[in-house]
Amino acid sequence: MASDGFQPLNEKLLVEYLKATPSLAAKLGNQFDKLEIKEIGDGNLNFVYIVLSPSGSIVIKQALPYIRCIGESWPMTKERAYFEATTLQEQARLCPDHVPEVYHFDRKMCLIGMRYVEPPHIILRKGLISGIEYPLLAEHISEFMARTLFYTSLLYLTTTDHKSAVAKYCGNVELCRLTEQVVFSDPYKVSEYNRCTSPYLDADAEAVREDNILKLEIAELKSKFCERAQALIHGDLHTGSVMVTKNSTQVIDPEFGFYGPMGFDIGAFIGNLILAYFAQDGHADKGADRKPYKKWILKTISDTWNLFYAKFTALWDKHKDGPGEAYLPEIYNNPDLQLLVKKKYMEDLLHDTLGFGAAKMIRRIVGVAHVEDFESIEEASRRADCERKALNVAKTLLKERKKFHSISEVVSAVEQLDA
Amino acid sequence: MASDGFQPLNEKLLVEYLKATPSLAAKLGNQFDKLEIKEIGDGNLNFVYIVLSPSGSIVIKQALPYIRCIGESWPMTKERAYFEATTLQEQARLCPDHVPEVYHFDRKMCLIGMRYVEPPHIILRKGLISGIEYPLLAEHISEFMARTLFYTSLLYLTTTDHKSAVAKYCGNVELCRLTEQVVFSDPYKVSEYNRCTSPYLDADAEAVREDNILKLEIAELKSKFCERAQALIHGDLHTGSVMVTKNSTQVIDPEFGFYGPMGFDIGAFIGNLILAYFAQDGHADKGADRKPYKKWILKTISDTWNLFYAKFTALWDKHKDGPGEAYLPEIYNNPDLQLLVKKKYMEDLLHDTLGFGAAKMIRRIVGVAHVEDFESIEEASRRADCERKALNVAKTLLKERKKFHSISEVVSAVEQLDA
Repeated sequence: MASDGFQPLNEKLLVEYLKATPSLAAKLGNQFDKLEIKEIGDGNLNFVYIVLSPSGSIVIKQALPYIRCIGESWPMTKERAYFEATTLQEQARLCPDHVPEVYHFDRKMCLIGMRYVEPPHIILRKGLISGIEYPLLAEHISEFMARTLFYTSLLYLTTTDHKSAVAKYCGNVELCRLTEQVVFSDPYKVSEYNRCTSPYLDADAEAVREDNILKLEIAELKSKFCERAQALIHGDLHTGSVMVTKNSTQVIDPEFGFYGPMGFDIGAFIGNLILAYFAQDGHADKGADRKPYKKWILKTISDTWNLFYAKFTALWDKHKDGPGEAYLPEIYNNPDLQLLVKKKYMEDLLHDTLGFGAAKMIRRIVGVAHVEDFESIEEASRRADCERKALNVAKTLLKERKKFHSISEVVSAVEQLDA
Repeated sequence: MASDGFQPLNEKLLVEYLKATPSLAAKLGNQFDKLEIKEIGDGNLNFVYIVLSPSGSIVIKQALPYIRCIGESWPMTKERAYFEATTLQEQARLCPDHVPEVYHFDRKMCLIGMRYVEPPHIILRKGLISGIEYPLLAEHISEFMARTLFYTSLLYLTTTDHKSAVAKYCGNVELCRLTEQVVFSDPYKVSEYNRCTSPYLDADAEAVREDNILKLEIAELKSKFCERAQALIHGDLHTGSVMVTKNSTQVIDPEFGFYGPMGFDIGAFIGNLILAYFAQDGHADKGADRKPYKKWILKTISDTWNLFYAKFTALWDKHKDGPGEAYLPEIYNNPDLQLLVKKKYMEDLLHDTLGFGAAKMIRRIVGVAHVEDFESIEEASRRADCERKALNVAKTLLKERKKFHSISEVVSAVEQLDA
């Protein structure tokens, strides 16, 4: 064991750890004879063990002091486990239906013991690739975003509570820096980490690097990401951070959590749905042209934003006489003015959402980490066609985001550029 | 002495303290026989002692655990002394010509020992009321703002250093809350603290409280103040926080210092110059119509912004390959793009400056703390005429700020509304 009390687990050590930790042992019914243990982490970032006993189950996630990137080891603070655990606990408090419960956190060991989000839950991204419809997805994810973002913003918190939380999450700076690099920087310059579907997209990737207006806009978004402590955001809310069944939606992996702009979360989710949309043509075959599924994705994008809008502003109404100090009732107590401030707030948020969403799309096509939606399209030229359409939509959304006034206009733009 | 080690000073205790503190004693040449001590604080917020010995001088400032407001005592953390000392030291490091040196800081006693900014220095506001021109003022204050704001922003700092500083200054939340209340809230609602030149301005004050567009805009500025950690700002940079001679400019009293929007500082200074401008008609008499002086104030407003613009962007050029992570050279290394991003950054900053400046003007006319510029105009109706013009300019600047593209347009608007 290292002097700081950290020790990477293996299966044997894990069992010892479980036996010695009452809160975890209890979840397994204190039965250790017939444990079934499976390591499912990709080994690049974290160990993730599923532990099943005849009378219960848990997941154990342990952060390692590095990430692997294209075979290279990249040091990365294991303190991120602390921020992941804290964010999970805070989000579970605010939205227990859609966040797995944390049973145990060990800061020295960088170890979280939490609910096993059991089958038939799968990662949403895999469901989208398979063409599965999730009728409650928009309802659930909008609920998660509305509650976690509203209750950690100045619409609900006092300045005192807000600043104290902001200060705490400033400690998660290494993960913020990683986002800055991979989302806001690398795609716009030559970087050893970047890749794209070559040679088909080489010129497109170069065009991104040469596009002054795009670079002007990405700078504005980057400074908003770095400077604007609007709410506790998940920080990595793509479709790989969501586990789903037809009836359940669970948001996991908030290790990038910090006080940042709300649009970064909403944009991550919607941007990844747009990626999934453009990948469908690559998954279509004689048996299924995926056209109805593409319609469903577009509807889910609309519903997500519109339900978020409705839920978020309903929380605002509900708590307009609450502790939040942003819009004091004595000043904003007339109905016309309330409509006016909400309209402006939500329109600004839509623009942030489109900007950040587009940035997250671009980086998945010409940056370091690609998405399985496209990667699973085997034929490169076909994959490139899908990616190019998505890239062009993203560039338009990023540059023109302030011209959009509703999500239906966004969906129309997506359809138009798909033609 | 209280259990926390804090003890309010009187003259006797002060001398004992000086004798026991080598760094301060040295500044007085260790001569305590012929000390001359004068308490010049208004006793509302801090004790401020000037201490003169035959061979040196110092100022001792001690924060008290409350502020007084219209005769009422308002509890206020004395920890603000820590943030004042820290900000003074940081600003002096970045701009030693325009910030008095700190000789000593005692956190328990909330006590700062610093350079005595000696006569003929006077508070700038008093000089403006007297109609004195300061030919180097714009040069100096723009230097102060450019250096303190640039070097604490992400244009120069790494994300790591920036976030760590942001976290520290989150501790100055009580002073931030005070600003939120008196600048962004009280003027827009009925508050026991508000006052105005009654009855002349009663309808104007009510119009502010009933103006939905104004309240919509002030909400946007308030959220920027609360959420946007752009740079270490002074936080209270009005003309009462600046001491001047014809040749020297010294910025004092940064107890409101924290990481906030740059435009809040620049706006405070320019907004207070506009107040000074509109107060001149109230100071005019047969001997001096103050017209040339009003021209000088307008020129100083223009020069302040234009020199700030030049100095700030020059620092940006100088450090474009430096540690700052906002605009990486590999991305922003072409001259056209550099011009483009600077133009956008500075235009956004102008809009913030006008918005915050206007907010600071409004609160000085219909809020709790008024300015001597107007208060010293004895005849109420004459004072009200001056104040009304200033208020109308402020409302225009706040609502229309995004339509201005240069400071000369702002100056024209001021002149037009003065006609």
